[in-house]
Amino acid sequence: MSTGSALLAELIEALRCLPGVGAKSAQRMAFHVLERDRAGARRLAERLGAAVERIGNCRRCRGFSETEICSLCANSGRDASLLCVVESPVDQAAVEVATGFRGHYFVLLGRLSPLDGLGPRELGLDLLAERLREGEVKELIVATNPTVEGEATAHLLSQLAREAGVRATRLAHGVPLGGELEFIDRGTLAHAFGSRQTLT
Amino acid sequence: MSTGSALLAELIEALRCLPGVGAKSAQRMAFHVLERDRAGARRLAERLGAAVERIGNCRRCRGFSETEICSLCANSGRDASLLCVVESPVDQAAVEVATGFRGHYFVLLGRLSPLDGLGPRELGLDLLAERLREGEVKELIVATNPTVEGEATAHLLSQLAREAGVRATRLAHGVPLGGELEFIDRGTLAHAFGSRQTLT
Ligand SMILES: [Zn+2]
Ligand SMILES: [Zn+2]
Repeated sequence: MSTGSALLAELIEALRCLPGVGAKSAQRMAFHVLERDRAGARRLAERLGAAVERIGNCRRCRGFSETEICSLCANSGRDASLLCVVESPVDQAAVEVATGFRGHYFVLLGRLSPLDGLGPRELGLDLLAERLREGEVKELIVATNPTVEGEATAHLLSQLAREAGVRATRLAHGVPLGGELEFIDRGTLAHAFGSRQTLT
Repeated sequence: MSTGSALLAELIEALRCLPGVGAKSAQRMAFHVLERDRAGARRLAERLGAAVERIGNCRRCRGFSETEICSLCANSGRDASLLCVVESPVDQAAVEVATGFRGHYFVLLGRLSPLDGLGPRELGLDLLAERLREGEVKELIVATNPTVEGEATAHLLSQLAREAGVRATRLAHGVPLGGELEFIDRGTLAHAFGSRQTLT
C-alpha cells in the first residue's frame, strides 16, 4: 500500500473493474475524486449501486430497463411497424444515437454461437417470433454485427421473418467487414442504416 | 436518452466525474459493467461510497486516512528521523512506490500560492514546525514539485528547518523543470530521491 489509507488502496483496486483502467489510471481517478470531487464520487457510488441492483432486462425487447417494460417499448410515439434487431444494448444505443430511427428494438443479448452455448433460445428468438406473429411489425431491420457469427444470426433472423411474412432488411454495406457497430463513426452508421437492403 | 433505462443514462453521466472519462468512454464503462461485471461494479460502488464518507486527513501528516493517525504514521518500523514533505497525497504515493523511502511524510495539501489564498497556515506549516520542534526529525526532505510555486514553498520549508536546527534536503536535479512528480517515471524519481541535496 502506497498511502496510509487501506480504504484508498481498496478503492484503487476496485476501479480496475472499469474497461481500459489500469493500475496507474485507477490511482489517478481515486486521488482526483478524493481531492477534488467528492460530491461527484458520492453521486457515482449511488448511481452505480442503483444501476447494478435495479437494471434488468425489458420483458418485451430484452434491452436494459429498471421497469418491466422499458421506456422505449412503452413510448407510443414510436413506430411499431419497424423492429430493429441488435446483438447488445450498446449496439441499440449506437443505432438510436446515430440514425434517428424511431421504431422499436429487439436485443438478442448475444449472437448465434453454438460453441458458447448460444442458440435460438438464448437469443430470445421464441419471444421475437411471437412478436412477429402479433402482426404489427412490417419490417424487421437486422442490425447484427458484420462478423461471421453476426451474419449467421442475420440469416436465421431472415428465415424467422419469412416464416412470419415480415420483410427483413439488413444494414447497407458501408459497415466495414469484421467491424463492430459500437466503434463505427456516427456518419457511417447513419448512412448504412439509411441504405438498408431487403434480405434475400 | 439512447436506451430504455433512465438509471443507465444517469450512471453514464455520473461516470464523467472520473478524470479522462468523456461521454463515449463513460457509456462503454456503464455497458461493460452491466453486461459483464456486476460484481465488480457493486464492489466499486461500495468502496467509492466508503472512501468518500470515511477518508479524511491524518492528524499527524495530513495524508489520506480513515483513522485519526494513518497507517504510515502509526508504523513504528519506519525511520522517524526522516521526514519527507510533499504537496499532495498523490506525490506521497509516487515517492513511496518509487524510492524505497522508509521514513515519514508530511503532506502540504497544496503549495504556496498567495493568489489562491494558500499561505503557511493553509499548508499546515504550524503543525510541521511543531513536529520539527519535537526533535526526532533529523532531515527534512523537501519533495515539492519543481515549479515556481513549488520552489517558493521549498524555500519557506528550508527556512523552517533552519530555525528548528534540522537539515533540509531537496530532490536532486533529474526531476525535469516544470514537471509534476506524479507523472515522472519511477526510475527518474528514484534516482532524484537518492541524490537529494542539502538545501542552502
Ligand atoms: Zn423494451
Ligand atoms: Zn499520517
